Amino acid sequence: MINIAVLGYGTVGSGVVEVIRTNGQIIDKNAGQNINVKYVLDLREFPGDPVMDILVHDYDVILNDPEVEVIAEVMGGVEPAYTFVKSALEKGKSVCTSNKELVAKHGPELLRIAAAHNRNFMFEASVGGGIPIIRPLNNAITADKINSITGILNGTTNYILTKMCKEGLDFDAVLKEAQELGYAERNPSADVDGFDACRKIAILCSLAYGKNVNYENIYTEGITKITDIDFKYANKLGRSVKLFGKAEHTEGQFYVFVTPVMIDDTHPLFSVNGVFNAILVNGNVLGDVMFYGSGAGKLPTASAVVSDIVDAVRNLNHNIPVEWSAEELELSDIRSSKKRFFVRLSGDTQARAEEVKAAFGDVEFISVEGVENEFAFITDIISEADYEEKASKLNGIITRIRME
Amino acid sequence: MINIAVLGYGTVGSGVVEVIRTNGQIIDKNAGQNINVKYVLDLREFPGDPVMDILVHDYDVILNDPEVEVIAEVMGGVEPAYTFVKSALEKGKSVCTSNKELVAKHGPELLRIAAAHNRNFMFEASVGGGIPIIRPLNNAITADKINSITGILNGTTNYILTKMCKEGLDFDAVLKEAQELGYAERNPSADVDGFDACRKIAILCSLAYGKNVNYENIYTEGITKITDIDFKYANKLGRSVKLFGKAEHTEGQFYVFVTPVMIDDTHPLFSVNGVFNAILVNGNVLGDVMFYGSGAGKLPTASAVVSDIVDAVRNLNHNIPVEWSAEELELSDIRSSKKRFFVRLSGDTQARAEEVKAAFGDVEFISVEGVENEFAFITDIISEADYEEKASKLNGIITRIRME
Repeated sequence: MINIAVLGYGTVGSGVVEVIRTNGQIIDKNAGQNINVKYVLDLREFPGDPVMDILVHDYDVILNDPEVEVIAEVMGGVEPAYTFVKSALEKGKSVCTSNKELVAKHGPELLRIAAAHNRNFMFEASVGGGIPIIRPLNNAITADKINSITGILNGTTNYILTKMCKEGLDFDAVLKEAQELGYAERNPSADVDGFDACRKIAILCSLAYGKNVNYENIYTEGITKITDIDFKYANKLGRSVKLFGKAEHTEGQFYVFVTPVMIDDTHPLFSVNGVFNAILVNGNVLGDVMFYGSGAGKLPTASAVVSDIVDAVRNLNHNIPVEWSAEELELSDIRSSKKRFFVRLSGDTQARAEEVKAAFGDVEFISVEGVENEFAFITDIISEADYEEKASKLNGIITRIRME
Repeated sequence: MINIAVLGYGTVGSGVVEVIRTNGQIIDKNAGQNINVKYVLDLREFPGDPVMDILVHDYDVILNDPEVEVIAEVMGGVEPAYTFVKSALEKGKSVCTSNKELVAKHGPELLRIAAAHNRNFMFEASVGGGIPIIRPLNNAITADKINSITGILNGTTNYILTKMCKEGLDFDAVLKEAQELGYAERNPSADVDGFDACRKIAILCSLAYGKNVNYENIYTEGITKITDIDFKYANKLGRSVKLFGKAEHTEGQFYVFVTPVMIDDTHPLFSVNGVFNAILVNGNVLGDVMFYGSGAGKLPTASAVVSDIVDAVRNLNHNIPVEWSAEELELSDIRSSKKRFFVRLSGDTQARAEEVKAAFGDVEFISVEGVENEFAFITDIISEADYEEKASKLNGIITRIRME
């Protein structure tokens, strides 16, 4: 029998306890041992909940119990999670976490401590909820130069964008509805400003290239400026707008960014709708592979945490090496990265055609019925810097959205 | 340095050598050691090819060389692959294979021999080409009761069905074109009759449930009876027809089958077109996760073989346990499995409506412009046996396709 402890009895924590209770037989068989939840740590009380029998308020009880061999950290936030996890690893306990802030900020250090103690620090649930992506990146996609990783990494923003696309609603209306349904937080900034996706692409990129990507250095744009009018154009073009977290390794440069991107229906991520997440990996010999599933939610996320627990139990005294050094990956300025841009401009197409062509060359113009006093065009593939320079020559640019 | 040997210098074998040459630096870093291809086994000569320097015709040279620690078996077919692989494992060499016939037929025995010698028998490339699916099933989806695995597992048939769907062509015309393009074999039976998909779903199902599924017991229907008329109805219904390999665990029963299935555009596999493959796994807590990518082709398949080699090198003296016992999984007769059926019937809707309703209840009728002297209807969810019994009351059934 292996004793484990669960730190935090919130959404994911209660999910972990529920999954272990529901699927105990299967899980024990896969782990090769009986897994026993010996403690749950939470500051709150849960009167009437069976977890009361094993609830503790003092982390030291868990830390100093040599019987606890694996810890699931599902509290979220950097502190006190970081202090708890670090001390657990130093005591020779393996740790499995769903905490993307913790992993993005302290991943390399915690991996190093785990390795030094011949234990494991696992974080499958920190990106993509229930989708297996950390483990495949670490031990399956190992024969390729990874050209790019493109992810729809945040369910809340994908839900909002999908609703806007399919129902023609504007951002504020959909956000409000998402908040009522519990898909968006009351303070939605972490999601809609792209900060959540930013931490997740930092983790994926660090794993793919083996060096640390500081999420604070990632160019990040959220979806708050995307409007129902943008989707009118997108629909006319047979396209959609998605929030991508993307890492590209091209011509020796590494570009990492989080931005809305307008894609067409041949893009593998085009059909990823609602709260679903997906991660597309392009390798130089593998081509495209995509991983799709529930990117959040109590049970899918808990399933990923428990699969880490199973792996930690299978490898109790065996560190599974993870290539993620503390050395910083040198990111290039995204101003030199190249793409097409969709640009909306105020005024009349006829009147301003020459002016636009003078700046951007022979571009294609788009008008949408019912959208007055403006038009749009699509640029050639140009660098971000080149776009900025050309765009500075035009007055009245309403918005620009990157394309793929 | 680790010495390896490649058995077979055909499409996949030459791909393995090419991938190791192209991405050697990345691969060596991931493996933690320099990987050296010491031998390539093939009965043929390859004058002018650099492989000539390491080509051998006699397997015993490889088998008896203690320096060879990992073998990539990419010859295909059961013999002599089985004899070669078995003897290699018994000599304490790990084996990585792309050979689905070998794995489907002898998987449990070869896994047992590998474990007994503390080596590994790996077969990521045997299903889904470059898509990581074997490893995720074995070590990532371990916290769930797996309700179902649904795969588009054969690129040739998916290419043919996609062409038929998008271009309105009939089966023979598309098959001919696929043969000319090299997407289909001159003798296409293994693909179009479903035998290839059958071996692959047998492997996935065995891994998912830990017991052996004999592929000879899997109900298998190919795509040779699917016509351009079927797609006219499908298009009208906003649906498509795909060849599914499927394993279901429902109400305590295990059903495994390979059949064409008509699906709608909300199905996660709907957008999997052309030669791409995808595998959808449904877990009781995880929900749906999907793995998508190039299901065949020289380099994607070779990438998967090489990722196995990397893993074998990382775990040279450590057997990674795989749950797949020789005990047979008891499959239920698919006659008791339940679904809707799409049925085409000759004659006139009006004239035969009562007759159909008498047999199948109050079903929905479908007519397609330009398709004369026949019509179609969709049944309720009924068992296969129930369908057969009701259908026997009607003359002139042209075809029936299962729905999902």
